[in-house]
Amino acid sequence: MSVSPVASLSEGELIGRIRERLAAVPPPDWLQVGIGDDAAVVETERNRLEVLTVDAIVEGVHFDRAFTPPSAIGHRAVAVNLSDLAAMGATPRLALLSLVLPRTFPLADFDEIIGSMSALAARFRMTIVGGNLTQTDGPLVLDVTVVGTVKKRRALTRGGARPGDDVYVTGVIGAAAAGLQMLQAEPNCAAVESVDPCVRQYLYPEPRVRFGTILSRNRGATACMDLSDGLADAVHQIAGASQVGATIDGAALPIAASARRWFEERGQNAVDASVTGGDDYELLFTARPRLRGRLAAAQQHGHAPMTRIGSCTADRAVLLRDGGVERPMPPGYSHFR
Amino acid sequence: MSVSPVASLSEGELIGRIRERLAAVPPPDWLQVGIGDDAAVVETERNRLEVLTVDAIVEGVHFDRAFTPPSAIGHRAVAVNLSDLAAMGATPRLALLSLVLPRTFPLADFDEIIGSMSALAARFRMTIVGGNLTQTDGPLVLDVTVVGTVKKRRALTRGGARPGDDVYVTGVIGAAAAGLQMLQAEPNCAAVESVDPCVRQYLYPEPRVRFGTILSRNRGATACMDLSDGLADAVHQIAGASQVGATIDGAALPIAASARRWFEERGQNAVDASVTGGDDYELLFTARPRLRGRLAAAQQHGHAPMTRIGSCTADRAVLLRDGGVERPMPPGYSHFR
Repeated sequence: MSVSPVASLSEGELIGRIRERLAAVPPPDWLQVGIGDDAAVVETERNRLEVLTVDAIVEGVHFDRAFTPPSAIGHRAVAVNLSDLAAMGATPRLALLSLVLPRTFPLADFDEIIGSMSALAARFRMTIVGGNLTQTDGPLVLDVTVVGTVKKRRALTRGGARPGDDVYVTGVIGAAAAGLQMLQAEPNCAAVESVDPCVRQYLYPEPRVRFGTILSRNRGATACMDLSDGLADAVHQIAGASQVGATIDGAALPIAASARRWFEERGQNAVDASVTGGDDYELLFTARPRLRGRLAAAQQHGHAPMTRIGSCTADRAVLLRDGGVERPMPPGYSHFR
Repeated sequence: MSVSPVASLSEGELIGRIRERLAAVPPPDWLQVGIGDDAAVVETERNRLEVLTVDAIVEGVHFDRAFTPPSAIGHRAVAVNLSDLAAMGATPRLALLSLVLPRTFPLADFDEIIGSMSALAARFRMTIVGGNLTQTDGPLVLDVTVVGTVKKRRALTRGGARPGDDVYVTGVIGAAAAGLQMLQAEPNCAAVESVDPCVRQYLYPEPRVRFGTILSRNRGATACMDLSDGLADAVHQIAGASQVGATIDGAALPIAASARRWFEERGQNAVDASVTGGDDYELLFTARPRLRGRLAAAQQHGHAPMTRIGSCTADRAVLLRDGGVERPMPPGYSHFR
């Protein structure tokens, strides 16, 4: 059976397929002009600030098509952007998709990518209002722009941490890095019934949108960012932007159980592998110790556990306490290199 | 002398270079969080609708690095998006840049691209509020998202033309297609002092932002779009969205003089080459004949000439009158194939 490539359809026909897949969700009242004109036209939300971000995921850099199914590629492209909104405490509102498609890219995979993008967007009540399609002889690039909203004075930035603040992280860490190693070792391991939770977490990261909006609403956090480039990077970034130091307790880190096992069986230091691994889309945030009560709501309704892993210091050093000794926190993961 | 590639710097260092180049323009009051956090935070504009669009330009598809200088690549990436805002009658406000850079891409070319993007944005008072950098082994991709604003009920769409409306186009057409052919024939022709105006127009298209906003403000137009995929495509699109037909008079088309000469000397039909050529970022719009007076303002203050080239019909056919006979309008240019 031959595989139809996207190049067998015109741009208009592909846009038609996208519109069909998006039609399942009725358009919101505030959308005045959607897909199909030179640009989208929307009403803004009263008394809210807008939060905007863009992120591209690129074949060979952020994912390997050899072991990443199309549904995971589409999911990731939207999830990484939702994660940035979550880190600001924003509620997702709309998205624009810019897709650069290899000419030979299978049409069935295109449909699966669009389906997973639209499903994740719908789950977070985010409307896809427009976009752009291009063909290329190079790798697949999915570029997603998202816009969310947040109440005035409630945006969570990287710059508000103070000495003495506690440092927290949501969920577990190390899972994505271990999951990626598992897929690299055995590309078909996602297809088995007893798939390791790390593999699932690598392929389908869950953005912590609800947790972020609760932190923003009850002013529980002083600074926040997501772990797209790993926990070590996030601690460095928040410390730098807030002009504080931080000491993280390696023994307190919520390292995923099967990730720890995977790393240790291969002679890797589980703490280092987990703090420097990328793609855990958890939130790192800081909070005043005397306002711990406010975090209870996030803990209870945020759809994710949270763990206190250290504290901020007046001294600007960023340290990792591991096996009884403090050493400099390693640098973060970089997708860029 | 060796050339430094972008890969010799970290993502943070490249972002630093971008921030330096943007620092020339003071940030507007409404920008609460700019480049350097998980997302940008902005105040919205009261009583205005937002207009959003994204467009990617891809090496090998939209430009050829062999004869397109970096400043023209950066200019184009921003101009095509400003042109989409112009087509909606919107005033530009902010932009997000997502750049996918080949690892070997020269740092000096990166600087030149950023410089030309920021210069064009500044000229239209558009603030670059954030973005994303990625490296790739594939071609250069510049993905730009822009947001503009327009008064309520004043957005220009493709769907408002009625039978009997006049059809207009701004500026001249065919110039970009001829300019591209000139560059393909003689890659260095942009470097000479007596560079053909078509080459300049291909390399540095001027988005018709001012013309579009005037049309929107005085309700002079019933439908509007830009010519990114050529005049023939724009007539088809407006006719389709408005459910009308149109007859365009080939003899009335404002074909650039040196483009006409270039096409005719090479045995090409100048009318066909000009209506099917892409990359003329002019506006095509329709207007009621009895409201012609309103167009005078656009004519006078819109920074571009305009030409009446035909009219809309109740019959759904889209025709080109050429050499005394009417024939179907050819299909548009497609960057997609």
